[in-house]
Amino acid sequence: MDQQQLFEQIQKKHSFLCVGLDTDIQRIPNHLLDTSDPIFTFNKEVIDATHAYCVAYKPNLAFYESLGWKGWESLEKTIVYLKSKYPEIFVIADAKRGDIGNTSNLYARAFFEHLDFDAITVAPYMGEDSVKPFMTYLGKWVILLALTSNKGAADFQYIKNDGNGDSLFESVLKTSQNWGTTENMMYVVGATKAEKLKDIRKIVPNHFLLVPGVGAQGGSLEEVARNGMNDKCGLLVNSSRGIIYASNDVDFAEKASVAAKKVQLEMEVLLKENDLI
Amino acid sequence: MDQQQLFEQIQKKHSFLCVGLDTDIQRIPNHLLDTSDPIFTFNKEVIDATHAYCVAYKPNLAFYESLGWKGWESLEKTIVYLKSKYPEIFVIADAKRGDIGNTSNLYARAFFEHLDFDAITVAPYMGEDSVKPFMTYLGKWVILLALTSNKGAADFQYIKNDGNGDSLFESVLKTSQNWGTTENMMYVVGATKAEKLKDIRKIVPNHFLLVPGVGAQGGSLEEVARNGMNDKCGLLVNSSRGIIYASNDVDFAEKASVAAKKVQLEMEVLLKENDLI
Repeated sequence: MDQQQLFEQIQKKHSFLCVGLDTDIQRIPNHLLDTSDPIFTFNKEVIDATHAYCVAYKPNLAFYESLGWKGWESLEKTIVYLKSKYPEIFVIADAKRGDIGNTSNLYARAFFEHLDFDAITVAPYMGEDSVKPFMTYLGKWVILLALTSNKGAADFQYIKNDGNGDSLFESVLKTSQNWGTTENMMYVVGATKAEKLKDIRKIVPNHFLLVPGVGAQGGSLEEVARNGMNDKCGLLVNSSRGIIYASNDVDFAEKASVAAKKVQLEMEVLLKENDLI
Repeated sequence: MDQQQLFEQIQKKHSFLCVGLDTDIQRIPNHLLDTSDPIFTFNKEVIDATHAYCVAYKPNLAFYESLGWKGWESLEKTIVYLKSKYPEIFVIADAKRGDIGNTSNLYARAFFEHLDFDAITVAPYMGEDSVKPFMTYLGKWVILLALTSNKGAADFQYIKNDGNGDSLFESVLKTSQNWGTTENMMYVVGATKAEKLKDIRKIVPNHFLLVPGVGAQGGSLEEVARNGMNDKCGLLVNSSRGIIYASNDVDFAEKASVAAKKVQLEMEVLLKENDLI
């Protein structure tokens, strides 16, 4: 999927919502535990109930790996289901991978060949050769961690470079622009750091940003849009727990639908305010 | 496993070798492809042929994930085999994970509960709350990326902090010492950066270091030992391709054994020179 196609989906659905499929076997409704694959069943019902209100899904790998190979099997079934039933939806592996070039090649093979993800989140610490193997697939995307939504972001991401005064996350944004383009790179910027989005937009005016941290983590959607939206929207805002765990009873899918629609309607207002729809 | 037990294994085997199980379906001998689980069969034979010469194994997750859930199943069988047949051996998940605390908890569940790894490599970019969930398991270890062996290490790891002049990797070493102890933390320092080991030892004199990059990547074992060894050895030096792909014919296990023994004999000399055996 290219940037224009993603923007067209946003315009069509009046939404820039990404639903995080952080599906935890310890949190899904009890009645699903009797099915042959509770994780896949949960995902399938959440997807069917929310697809009209979002443009992207983002399974976080940790939740699947906590169940070992069976979790990976549930993930694979989820991706196959998404790609066959809703091929217009952008699917992100929230995997935060990154290794020496030889090894990142194998991760790329895992997420872009074996599985048909559109994008993968990548950690920048190991530099260019750990990131570039993910960029050799046409229409596939790297989403590089820049400024994350968690408390620990403060430990290293704000360290100032004695050469030019840039924070580490600014160095990541600047240096990595030599590795890819607005057609194969996005950045993670946490909604809890929305006040930084204006400055970040000066460095990366045209890249899409994946913004986690709205909802359970406390970020504000309105502030994110005010500081981060560009002329192609340029934002995918993720919500996980607030949507998929809106209820943990038999009505979980219905309540997920209601929660996703609520966010979509807020997004519609913001898109209209910015003359994007 | 605690630090003393690891040192005792090193003394017993006259070796601080870690064998990297970077098992690539595209590189293993053809005759194995007819078995029901080629990856597991390869690993089992390599382990049986090399266990006498090493104290640790390190499967890199990328190689298993490139095959999806079937690769994870081969990995799980490998760990069960290792833990049941060679329980004295230290087993490292080279996974380079790290996410917000809530999510790192799930990764910890994956690698320390579902799978019985002794240690996992973790990327430091997201800071304390992304790392600490891995430290809540007694006898389990975090191996934090500090200075990696690849070319891209130069992109960010050497950025100097304008406050104190520390390089980013030095900040990682110093800051993270508040998170754990010499009993639950190690650091990755690439053998290709062996000249930095003396300075790194000033910051972390007593921590174990996991040192990749000897062999195919060009690092020198002797230089690593000269600059990095402490009074409990303090080193696990990894070799992957040089051992497991010593031959890609029916004699692969035999040749892996010869290659591992060759490294072990070099290590024995270095341990003797340092009066550790």
